[in-house]
Amino acid sequence: MFESAELGHKIDKATYDEEVPKLREALLDAQLELVEKASFPVIILMGGLDGAGRGETVNLLNEWMDPRFIQTHGMGEPSDEEMDRPMMWRFWRALPPKGKIGLFLGSWYTWPMLNRVMGVTKPADLDQSLERAKRLEKMLTDEGALIIKFWLHLSKEKQKARLEFLEKNPKTRWRVTKRDWEHYKRYDRFVEVYESVLRHTSTAEAPWIIVEGADARYRSLTVGKVILETIRKRLSEQEQRKPAEIAAPPLLPAIDKLDILKTLDMTQKLDKKKFDEELEKYQGKLAMLTRDPGFKDISVVVVFEGNDAAGKGGSIRRITGALDARQYQVIPIAAPTEEEREQPYLWRFWRQLPRKGRVAIFDRSWYGRVLVERVEKFCSESDWMRAYMEINDFEAQLVRHRIVVVKFWLSITEDEQLRRFEDRQKTGFKRFKITEEDWRNRSKWEAYEQAVCDMVDRTSTAVAPWTLVEANDKPFARIKVLKTLCQRIEAAMEKKKGD
Amino acid sequence: MFESAELGHKIDKATYDEEVPKLREALLDAQLELVEKASFPVIILMGGLDGAGRGETVNLLNEWMDPRFIQTHGMGEPSDEEMDRPMMWRFWRALPPKGKIGLFLGSWYTWPMLNRVMGVTKPADLDQSLERAKRLEKMLTDEGALIIKFWLHLSKEKQKARLEFLEKNPKTRWRVTKRDWEHYKRYDRFVEVYESVLRHTSTAEAPWIIVEGADARYRSLTVGKVILETIRKRLSEQEQRKPAEIAAPPLLPAIDKLDILKTLDMTQKLDKKKFDEELEKYQGKLAMLTRDPGFKDISVVVVFEGNDAAGKGGSIRRITGALDARQYQVIPIAAPTEEEREQPYLWRFWRQLPRKGRVAIFDRSWYGRVLVERVEKFCSESDWMRAYMEINDFEAQLVRHRIVVVKFWLSITEDEQLRRFEDRQKTGFKRFKITEEDWRNRSKWEAYEQAVCDMVDRTSTAVAPWTLVEANDKPFARIKVLKTLCQRIEAAMEKKKGD
Repeated sequence: MFESAELGHKIDKATYDEEVPKLREALLDAQLELVEKASFPVIILMGGLDGAGRGETVNLLNEWMDPRFIQTHGMGEPSDEEMDRPMMWRFWRALPPKGKIGLFLGSWYTWPMLNRVMGVTKPADLDQSLERAKRLEKMLTDEGALIIKFWLHLSKEKQKARLEFLEKNPKTRWRVTKRDWEHYKRYDRFVEVYESVLRHTSTAEAPWIIVEGADARYRSLTVGKVILETIRKRLSEQEQRKPAEIAAPPLLPAIDKLDILKTLDMTQKLDKKKFDEELEKYQGKLAMLTRDPGFKDISVVVVFEGNDAAGKGGSIRRITGALDARQYQVIPIAAPTEEEREQPYLWRFWRQLPRKGRVAIFDRSWYGRVLVERVEKFCSESDWMRAYMEINDFEAQLVRHRIVVVKFWLSITEDEQLRRFEDRQKTGFKRFKITEEDWRNRSKWEAYEQAVCDMVDRTSTAVAPWTLVEANDKPFARIKVLKTLCQRIEAAMEKKKGD
Repeated sequence: MFESAELGHKIDKATYDEEVPKLREALLDAQLELVEKASFPVIILMGGLDGAGRGETVNLLNEWMDPRFIQTHGMGEPSDEEMDRPMMWRFWRALPPKGKIGLFLGSWYTWPMLNRVMGVTKPADLDQSLERAKRLEKMLTDEGALIIKFWLHLSKEKQKARLEFLEKNPKTRWRVTKRDWEHYKRYDRFVEVYESVLRHTSTAEAPWIIVEGADARYRSLTVGKVILETIRKRLSEQEQRKPAEIAAPPLLPAIDKLDILKTLDMTQKLDKKKFDEELEKYQGKLAMLTRDPGFKDISVVVVFEGNDAAGKGGSIRRITGALDARQYQVIPIAAPTEEEREQPYLWRFWRQLPRKGRVAIFDRSWYGRVLVERVEKFCSESDWMRAYMEINDFEAQLVRHRIVVVKFWLSITEDEQLRRFEDRQKTGFKRFKITEEDWRNRSKWEAYEQAVCDMVDRTSTAVAPWTLVEANDKPFARIKVLKTLCQRIEAAMEKKKGD
């Protein structure tokens, strides 16, 4: 795998001096075209051995290119803020928008590999990290991102020579640390792990580009040319680029009249007295749970989806009424902002993830993709089909980070919705709540019902199940929501004590 | 995940009797169109719980459809023949050709799941099996196959009722075994594992279709309709279907004149006397090794690639000269046969894998895809780009099954090739060995050299490294080949003893 990167590639100064000005100009041109078209982001990963020139290359690229459209991220030790979120959060927040370049010094591969070499983790842990990395990259390329992964390599002799060279020069001495020499001692082990990782993650969409790092001129010119050619190729393909066809089977046809929504008992009710008792009981319980010291180790993400006028707002207020105001955030999801449209679909949800000990309540959510966007054809079939798996992946990452994911579908019948719509139009202060769009959505009742059933079937998982709430009776729905939430939080905190 | 499949779906007899004749006719029509176009194969997996009707459904499909174009494979315990090969071999040999349908009762998921439920394997083993399954499916869909994965589900109560029902009827009693009841006792554990597996392997290209299995009429009609709709959809898309664009970076540009082939010392030679000594030594060693009792636990795959006239045949004869004739097979790879063209690219190599204790020598190989097919543009860029990863996957599966993979690139210089070509034209009995095509290939020397370097960089792995052989001097080349082969076999046998 590293054969070509141990040959002693070199570029003489004269050639280099002649080539660089041309390359820089071409890079700037490509960058401008990229910004103008703004049709895809470019993600460059710079990995490699100590002393192979990762930092220098990144600096040089920043010098060569227009700094307004390129942003560098040194991914060292994660911050407190970052430790509080799932591992991938720090990368999501750093993703470049369409038209821009994000340059990552260290990536989602760095720590998993290092931990494996150092024996901190087992082979199975590394495998799982690589799978997560591949899924992230697949999602990014499916969303249109261009990923260029560089690996700067050095032979064992070259690494030694390079560290010694840097040490001798007073100007660069500081760059060689004790850790570098410790790593050098484990050269063979490092290269063994790197080889295996590069092999498993060189996908057709995002292969590793291995570059010999010993000669700075060769390295810089190669990296620069690869970036240039890759961006150019993609810009020229851009016009005729089509999303991959989905040959997948259709979703389950409705051959009888039975579905999960139709089997709900919509007559369930709670009288005023019983409601008041239960409300006090579960709000009290929720208040206790979220103030328990154990709550600081978990966080909670609550998702509300439901028919229009199903009472999401009312249910949310019964939850927040029991919480400390500093502890929660209600996140209403409407059409994406301009900034959000420049990013992969899940980006705007990743940015809202709560820290430890906090609660985030989503009033509508990432499920928009498989509900409204599917039914209204705001995205292609392949986009919403792959969304099921991306969402399951996303939620699995949250759960793995001890975030309790509680998802409610508030269900009302067609008749009840009509009653509420008419009621809203009659009542002055409620009138703003009903729009033309609500009536339009209503006319597609069946298509939405099918989408909801498919969503539950495909995303109600053991780690993040859906709770269907019979919401024709508001008191009944509100108590079911509160009770479920308490149970889920309690179970998560128990589990902590358990293991 | 199983919500919709626990609702008690039912179809009454009248509806069923009305629907089935129409469905059968439509299925036969679709099957005929499939055979006529012969542009893709259909792979149907039928998985699910005991008693959920997998066998009955498969029987019914065979009854409904044209038996000439559908083939059923019951994947029970592997045979001796199959145990001798890597796990996936039995599936490769059963793949349907283009235009036909392969119906798998049990699949690449069956044993990994069962072993996990029974506690025979660890979570990490299951993860690895699932990754292999996903890569296999990705390769198949990339090659154009249509995969439909059914999962027949039953709620716990329904499974019990169903087993009791089958037991009561003398005609079906035999179908319920003690094992079925043992599995039933572990229902919750089974469903937990199944849920997780289905979640991780429901990709956009090949999602699982979960069908409630309790009511035979509902189950049959649903499965039949899904198959019909999926095949129809794909047939109608077929015309405009294009391979997915590859946005990947280009391979490394040659910015200096250095590459791995140019750095070989092509002047290396062996005189007659030394050659005779070494030949005797290493042929003797190879004979001993392959007759050692320990050799019965491994097998050997030798790959020969090289420039035209580099002396592959001569090297192969020096190997086979030391082997027992019953033990080895030389497999010359020319253009694929008609049957082979109807299958995924790697199929014709899978079918040639040796049993334990045997040696398969490939005179040219699966590397054709990234050499001649790339250079001559016999396949698309995305085909050969993804081939690197598919080949690495393939070889990793061989190595995992204790097959020693030894790969030789026999390299000669342009001058030496010319000398040999001219020599062949002059010598009567060698004249057949030189064709117009050889001269044509020669004119693309540089493109081939680039392809060879990329191939070595991307597929020389720790588990299956390339050996570059300086072959201007035939005696030197032949000894290097023999010696390397002995070393690799010896190391593999040592390793056995070691762990």
